[in-house]
Amino acid sequence: MYDTEIAQRAAEALAKIRETKPLIHHITNFVVMNDTANVTLHVGALPVMAHAKEEVREMVRLAGALVLNPGTLNPDWVEAMVLAGQEARRRAIPVVLDPVGAGATSLRTQANLRLLREVRPTIVRGNAGEIAALTGAGGVVKGVESIGGPEDLEAVVRQAAQDWQCTVAITGATDYVSDGVRLALVENGSPWLRTLTGTGCTATTVVAAFAAVETDALVAAASGLACLGYAAELAASQARGPASFKIALYDTIYNLTPEALAAGARIMVQRQDA
Amino acid sequence: MYDTEIAQRAAEALAKIRETKPLIHHITNFVVMNDTANVTLHVGALPVMAHAKEEVREMVRLAGALVLNPGTLNPDWVEAMVLAGQEARRRAIPVVLDPVGAGATSLRTQANLRLLREVRPTIVRGNAGEIAALTGAGGVVKGVESIGGPEDLEAVVRQAAQDWQCTVAITGATDYVSDGVRLALVENGSPWLRTLTGTGCTATTVVAAFAAVETDALVAAASGLACLGYAAELAASQARGPASFKIALYDTIYNLTPEALAAGARIMVQRQDA
Amino acid sequence: MYDTEIAQRAAEALAKIRETKPLIHHITNFVVMNDTANVTLHVGALPVMAHAKEEVREMVRLAGALVLNPGTLNPDWVEAMVLAGQEARRRAIPVVLDPVGAGATSLRTQANLRLLREVRPTIVRGNAGEIAALTGAGGVVKGVESIGGPEDLEAVVRQAAQDWQCTVAITGATDYVSDGVRLALVENGSPWLRTLTGTGCTATTVVAAFAAVETDALVAAASGLACLGYAAELAASQARGPASFKIALYDTIYNLTPEALAAGARIMVQRQDA
Repeated sequence: MYDTEIAQRAAEALAKIRETKPLIHHITNFVVMNDTANVTLHVGALPVMAHAKEEVREMVRLAGALVLNPGTLNPDWVEAMVLAGQEARRRAIPVVLDPVGAGATSLRTQANLRLLREVRPTIVRGNAGEIAALTGAGGVVKGVESIGGPEDLEAVVRQAAQDWQCTVAITGATDYVSDGVRLALVENGSPWLRTLTGTGCTATTVVAAFAAVETDALVAAASGLACLGYAAELAASQARGPASFKIALYDTIYNLTPEALAAGARIMVQRQDA
Repeated sequence: MYDTEIAQRAAEALAKIRETKPLIHHITNFVVMNDTANVTLHVGALPVMAHAKEEVREMVRLAGALVLNPGTLNPDWVEAMVLAGQEARRRAIPVVLDPVGAGATSLRTQANLRLLREVRPTIVRGNAGEIAALTGAGGVVKGVESIGGPEDLEAVVRQAAQDWQCTVAITGATDYVSDGVRLALVENGSPWLRTLTGTGCTATTVVAAFAAVETDALVAAASGLACLGYAAELAASQARGPASFKIALYDTIYNLTPEALAAGARIMVQRQDA
Repeated sequence: MYDTEIAQRAAEALAKIRETKPLIHHITNFVVMNDTANVTLHVGALPVMAHAKEEVREMVRLAGALVLNPGTLNPDWVEAMVLAGQEARRRAIPVVLDPVGAGATSLRTQANLRLLREVRPTIVRGNAGEIAALTGAGGVVKGVESIGGPEDLEAVVRQAAQDWQCTVAITGATDYVSDGVRLALVENGSPWLRTLTGTGCTATTVVAAFAAVETDALVAAASGLACLGYAAELAASQARGPASFKIALYDTIYNLTPEALAAGARIMVQRQDA
């Protein structure tokens, strides 16, 4: 039932991250900077957080992937994201956008629509409300939390991927990943992830690390989500609450071997006709 | 000796936070953003951190309470706090101010006095030095730490509440909460709280979550402080140092039931005549 | 072989930090603010994070030491660092510079060169790539990670110390500390430190706490590095991964007694002729 070939590619990508240690340039929010820098290291890559307009183009040239996460945005930061994103795309460096809170305020919706339009990210990862708000499918976002959205996530994710000409991941109990032609479902994860702030942002970071070494963006996104989700499954048994879960999760990401990921990834890929 | 009716109301409020999941909009400092977002989730509410002047008024309309915490302030952030705070008050959304470091520099003192004057917060929570510095009672603040202040905290907290026409909480070994008429003493807590950065900010966040569901601000403030303090007591037995204490504290907040809080809250309320 | 006199001075400094609780003013990066505030408390000092140009000069006057860490710099923050740094030097308050990512972009290189020139820090702590990039000895920095540099670190650290007329620490498996005349080697540490973000920044913070109480900058820097490194050694046995290591490390810093540090510090000091 699960796609063992994709699971194998996920494992190979994880091995390659650890071998090549790609730099993951983040322009991200204040809440998760420490967490996502740590997770970048634990999965095997190198993090850098840099947001000054004066340096982002120079910094991103060194990067294997760029994360744009306007979770605590202001207009200056959005400008820096556009500059870095365009420079990355010019150099074929993958860009992963996390449209935190799109739909909650017009600043967030407009900033993310601008990033979609002017940067044309390689991968977009959000929750159902955020993606639906940006596609116009109707999403309800309370702060940064999806509290309502369309039922048919397969249709939403495909439409988003086709509209934005990129790979889109909607994460939740099941993750939906589409490049407009193929649909990947990822069934790894743990309910504990929802008890912590920034686990969506963390997923985006892991996806970016995989995108730095795997050129098929759908495979990269599904692999990254399976990696984080499977680590969460393994960590859940050690959780006495959210904080001890987080410690176990980070330790597990660091200790996760490619072989374990190959065995644990639960990814299904199918054609998705329009 | 302890007020079982207030303890019961604290328990009911905790249950209501978990049932209604109010959004707690924070404009807060960089040091504690991750911690206070997590604690907001663990107590049962939803966090959002948003500080851009372009969006704070729109964001706060969705909120059950607003936290203003100028712990790493600059003038732009203070402007955003005024905008958000005034919009919240216009809509009867409770505003909780944490005057971090008031008294340490004139920027901090003046910014907090402006927030008191122009926002008129519902609740102010600070340490003895900060509150005394703002009332003119004479407080000594070293960085963000109270290292001296008046002896008679009952008088200081009442005067502050009367001057600012709001509920004021001075936290310490015993917490003093006054609305100018009533005084609540909260005797929950643990010395471990002083070994971590941002536990005052965390207390403010928990108070805000309670204020989102309990309209009596004095009861909300005392309940929130009892909730955090009692969780700290329970967590203390697992502490091998500050970091393991923090993990246990966050796990405990998440696992704390309304029944446990009703039994563990140590709150006393009395009339406080001027 | 190890210098017991210096180890004894490290222990005395640790005792003095806990007795006098110096304020450590940080103008630092967003990634590590929470971590370094906590470590400041755990080692026994008081942290404050303040970056507004309007208050940094007033705040630093209260401080026992100032940390300048442009890890997520923009031009405004660099201005504030110059203002605070100059005020500190005017008042003989030690300034510790952490040139995060110098060499990775010209903004970072230029900003750190400006801080060296205009502030004249007391101590500079960086990795080999950063220090070599700033001295012109040729360092390769990938984001914020040193991935290459000169072989002869003794010569580089001495040259840097002589050029900048301060104490310079290059941290790694062995730490090299020079004031241009003396060389201290610190052999405490654990490979786990490299699995976490911001441990360099944390080392800088601990060094600053020691510099607040020990006027010999070379002894202060070596003592701080031995303190963190020895705590890391003790914590390593409890690590199941990076996150559990971090918890154990922070607990251990808090619990480390001066006597334990005197016994565990592995510092060698020798004359270093030009």
